[in-house]
Amino acid sequence: MKLHELLERLNNLKQMPRTGWLLCNVPLTDVEDVAQHTFDVAAITLLLADELERRGKKLDRERALSMAIVHDWAEASVGDFPYTALKHLGPAGTKKSIEERALEEILNKLPNRIKYLALWREYSEKRTIEAKLVHAADYLSMLVQALKYRERGNRSKELDELWHAVHKDIKIYEKELPSVMALIKELDERYSALP
Amino acid sequence: MKLHELLERLNNLKQMPRTGWLLCNVPLTDVEDVAQHTFDVAAITLLLADELERRGKKLDRERALSMAIVHDWAEASVGDFPYTALKHLGPAGTKKSIEERALEEILNKLPNRIKYLALWREYSEKRTIEAKLVHAADYLSMLVQALKYRERGNRSKELDELWHAVHKDIKIYEKELPSVMALIKELDERYSALP
Amino acid sequence: MKLHELLERLNNLKQMPRTGWLLCNVPLTDVEDVAQHTFDVAAITLLLADELERRGKKLDRERALSMAIVHDWAEASVGDFPYTALKHLGPAGTKKSIEERALEEILNKLPNRIKYLALWREYSEKRTIEAKLVHAADYLSMLVQALKYRERGNRSKELDELWHAVHKDIKIYEKELPSVMALIKELDERYSALP
Amino acid sequence: MKLHELLERLNNLKQMPRTGWLLCNVPLTDVEDVAQHTFDVAAITLLLADELERRGKKLDRERALSMAIVHDWAEASVGDFPYTALKHLGPAGTKKSIEERALEEILNKLPNRIKYLALWREYSEKRTIEAKLVHAADYLSMLVQALKYRERGNRSKELDELWHAVHKDIKIYEKELPSVMALIKELDERYSALP
Amino acid sequence: MKLHELLERLNNLKQMPRTGWLLCNVPLTDVEDVAQHTFDVAAITLLLADELERRGKKLDRERALSMAIVHDWAEASVGDFPYTALKHLGPAGTKKSIEERALEEILNKLPNRIKYLALWREYSEKRTIEAKLVHAADYLSMLVQALKYRERGNRSKELDELWHAVHKDIKIYEKELPSVMALIKELDERYSALP
Amino acid sequence: MKLHELLERLNNLKQMPRTGWLLCNVPLTDVEDVAQHTFDVAAITLLLADELERRGKKLDRERALSMAIVHDWAEASVGDFPYTALKHLGPAGTKKSIEERALEEILNKLPNRIKYLALWREYSEKRTIEAKLVHAADYLSMLVQALKYRERGNRSKELDELWHAVHKDIKIYEKELPSVMALIKELDERYSALP
Repeated sequence: MKLHELLERLNNLKQMPRTGWLLCNVPLTDVEDVAQHTFDVAAITLLLADELERRGKKLDRERALSMAIVHDWAEASVGDFPYTALKHLGPAGTKKSIEERALEEILNKLPNRIKYLALWREYSEKRTIEAKLVHAADYLSMLVQALKYRERGNRSKELDELWHAVHKDIKIYEKELPSVMALIKELDERYSALP
Repeated sequence: MKLHELLERLNNLKQMPRTGWLLCNVPLTDVEDVAQHTFDVAAITLLLADELERRGKKLDRERALSMAIVHDWAEASVGDFPYTALKHLGPAGTKKSIEERALEEILNKLPNRIKYLALWREYSEKRTIEAKLVHAADYLSMLVQALKYRERGNRSKELDELWHAVHKDIKIYEKELPSVMALIKELDERYSALP
Repeated sequence: MKLHELLERLNNLKQMPRTGWLLCNVPLTDVEDVAQHTFDVAAITLLLADELERRGKKLDRERALSMAIVHDWAEASVGDFPYTALKHLGPAGTKKSIEERALEEILNKLPNRIKYLALWREYSEKRTIEAKLVHAADYLSMLVQALKYRERGNRSKELDELWHAVHKDIKIYEKELPSVMALIKELDERYSALP
Repeated sequence: MKLHELLERLNNLKQMPRTGWLLCNVPLTDVEDVAQHTFDVAAITLLLADELERRGKKLDRERALSMAIVHDWAEASVGDFPYTALKHLGPAGTKKSIEERALEEILNKLPNRIKYLALWREYSEKRTIEAKLVHAADYLSMLVQALKYRERGNRSKELDELWHAVHKDIKIYEKELPSVMALIKELDERYSALP
Repeated sequence: MKLHELLERLNNLKQMPRTGWLLCNVPLTDVEDVAQHTFDVAAITLLLADELERRGKKLDRERALSMAIVHDWAEASVGDFPYTALKHLGPAGTKKSIEERALEEILNKLPNRIKYLALWREYSEKRTIEAKLVHAADYLSMLVQALKYRERGNRSKELDELWHAVHKDIKIYEKELPSVMALIKELDERYSALP
Repeated sequence: MKLHELLERLNNLKQMPRTGWLLCNVPLTDVEDVAQHTFDVAAITLLLADELERRGKKLDRERALSMAIVHDWAEASVGDFPYTALKHLGPAGTKKSIEERALEEILNKLPNRIKYLALWREYSEKRTIEAKLVHAADYLSMLVQALKYRERGNRSKELDELWHAVHKDIKIYEKELPSVMALIKELDERYSALP
């Protein structure tokens, strides 16, 4: 794939809906897309990384930012699987290997492909502090977006369930990423203040 | 799942985009959804079935119509996989087994679930004349929709490729479903008359 | 009208808004269209027909499904009259005769036109059990969709009035279609649980 | 109807699609609505009225502007009939009497209702110079909008037919409204320069 | 600029979002545009003008209507500045002079340009009764639209703040335009009846 | 401004249309927003930075990526000025100082605000290789998006003019960023192959 083909392919992420919201009864014309979501994750990663450094935590910001930017590129080929699909995909790890194959195809022949694949793998393994940070940013982005949908009127129980599920998922980062927890507390206040 | 839950779940098909069009650069706000598509397939199945009977072909119209209505219900859970995803899903038959599991879950506890599963399986096995008819209707629906997008201005090479790919897929029904072929010829004329 | 022309015409139903929702202050970009609605009615007809047979009721499922698929084809030509328009159309029966003429024109020269016209007439006369079933499915589809809009935040008094009006309209089928009543009760619970 | 009810009712015109464009295969999410159209007609009426006065033609600008603003209010109740519906509505004049009854209902009890009804009647009778001017503005607004749709890619034969039909309709104003003709010539050049 | 160029330019107002609503968390696909807004302002100006005359107030209705139609033409060139932008634009009066220059450019060479510029200046100076009336109509249009968004589910604090801010802005017209106050009271009742 | 307020504010960028496309007659429901655009710019910056390093060019990738992410944050407050507005804003540099004040307000009290302001200033001064790279990515993002719109059917002369204007703007980076030029050549081929 030539570079211009990759750019056109990534442009498709502006069209790919984040299907979780559709299952929360968000109208198709108001659904967040993967490009918008990636913007969010990258911006939050940047803000949190700087916040962590201010508190004396060391991390490789360049790698964290690159990982945020790359983390959903595979969806240009396979789309965003609805969460209700996950249990039907097959054995644990199937989603990961589908996306990995898709990313490999998209990056095919790109001179720096190894680097992007490595970033994506690091992200999906959730072991380094940079990968954890981007996952936390990913969850925070969901909370902010859920709050926006709730503010627009959405009262589906699925949105409520997603809100609480994200809280559980993000909990494992609590110790390493204290500023995340402060932020969640603020968002909780906003969410529960809505009628 | 209670009946009202199933109805709410099927309502989600009005939100699920047909991802093939997105890959053809159709805007997300103009993408056909699975409910609209199913309407098309059901209507075309009805028209073709009557046409075939007029020509002396016997078929079980009730089963054909039911199959058309049911054929994409699994997508309420797993969405519509982009065609670029198919080769990454795993061994041949993976998509089918994902959708089958999803359909089983959606229909879970419904008294008549066996019937709908059987219809879906018949559809995906493409062996009976009714299943072939619904597949032909599915392809025809894609041609009509592709023509509409082209008429709205779309000139992506992906739309053109899809147009030709559908012609190849539908060819196997040529002998058994002669009225399909006449219809395709008419659509070809419309398509090539566009600038 | 050739068959491909009919298919293109029916494709327009994907564009025709169900105007009742617009009067309930649903945004134009989130309005259900006639094709989506017809999908719903056909799916509900199928589910209810099987449910009734399970309870020992006899009916011609093929005719019921065909009727569901055909019941709004006239709207490809005349659109969906807003309910506020009905009283201004003229003497009782005017809407019916407008739609009948429109359907005749759309089906013009189609070999099987008589069959579709007959199905449509049967539907609008509401006398056979199949016609009643499709009307019940039509009303149920409205309730499910109204619930979805309410869940998305809509609190217009028009939506509330529509909700109650549909209950009244569906009441006449109570005796003949007992499973409809059970379903409505479930939907009522969902509706009143929303804030 | 209290004044605030009338304002809320007129707000619905922002939701009412101009159905002619839908029949030209314009996507529902890109269709002009009646409020946007009325803005156009009022602006063009203002510009043409001043142009005519500059050429020495006398007319009552206040009445022309009021007529432009009021001319589609009935559509808040009855919507915009697709042009394919017109021949099915009944004897000539049926559309007019439907809209007149609808307007009467909307304006019901408004102290100045007589004035608005009179303006609407004057418009639909096309006899005064002011009424002719607003009709010309209405047609011109269609040409400008059709040009925009064509520029966005639309190549439906229906759009082309509408373009030519409007030319015929506007021809009767040629003598009385010479600046309209100059304008049409400019628009024709723009339209035919598009591929 | 030739007349057809001006008409094409004004057509852009159908595309220009009223940015205040976006800041209230209204989805981009549901945002009011400047053309829709202008329709509202023109219709309300007409209704209020007639109401005032009925109460014995003299005013030049033609000038008021023309002003309503023209008041946002500059936005075809500069767009609608978000209210959060205003304090950053520079010294008081900057917005006015930006829009004035833009309007001059748009109207460039139009024979009647002086008239439209004069109308726009009169509007922005808020001194004549006609200018005050159009400003009151502009504020009322915002209240009706805010009510519609709230009815669709929006519960952002920004919408609430806008609602109250508009009340303060409109207060200065209380004495001169008594029917405005009656209308606001009715709208307040509607707004506070929503959950 | 607390961190959660900043995140909610940045979420608004998903709603802010890139107004240049609206002036090219792209429908409002299909317009790119600032968040989508920023995703593009960040991804292209990453790809180009790696490409340049591969060719032996040294640059600070972390700073380039951060700059890409931050470069349009001010638009959460002031929106995206239409390019037709620029000449009316006042003396050269006015846009820059408006955006700078807006960014300062948005970042108000954030501990790391100085860093983001510095990044934004570096970007707008276009002097460092990192700033030039992000500008080149910004222009490339416009070319890819313009190509997409053209492929969807858009044939406005404004789109064509924008295409050529971007070529001129990007020319100054030709020497320092050779891989940009190769990319543009590929995009040109794609663009001119469209009918």
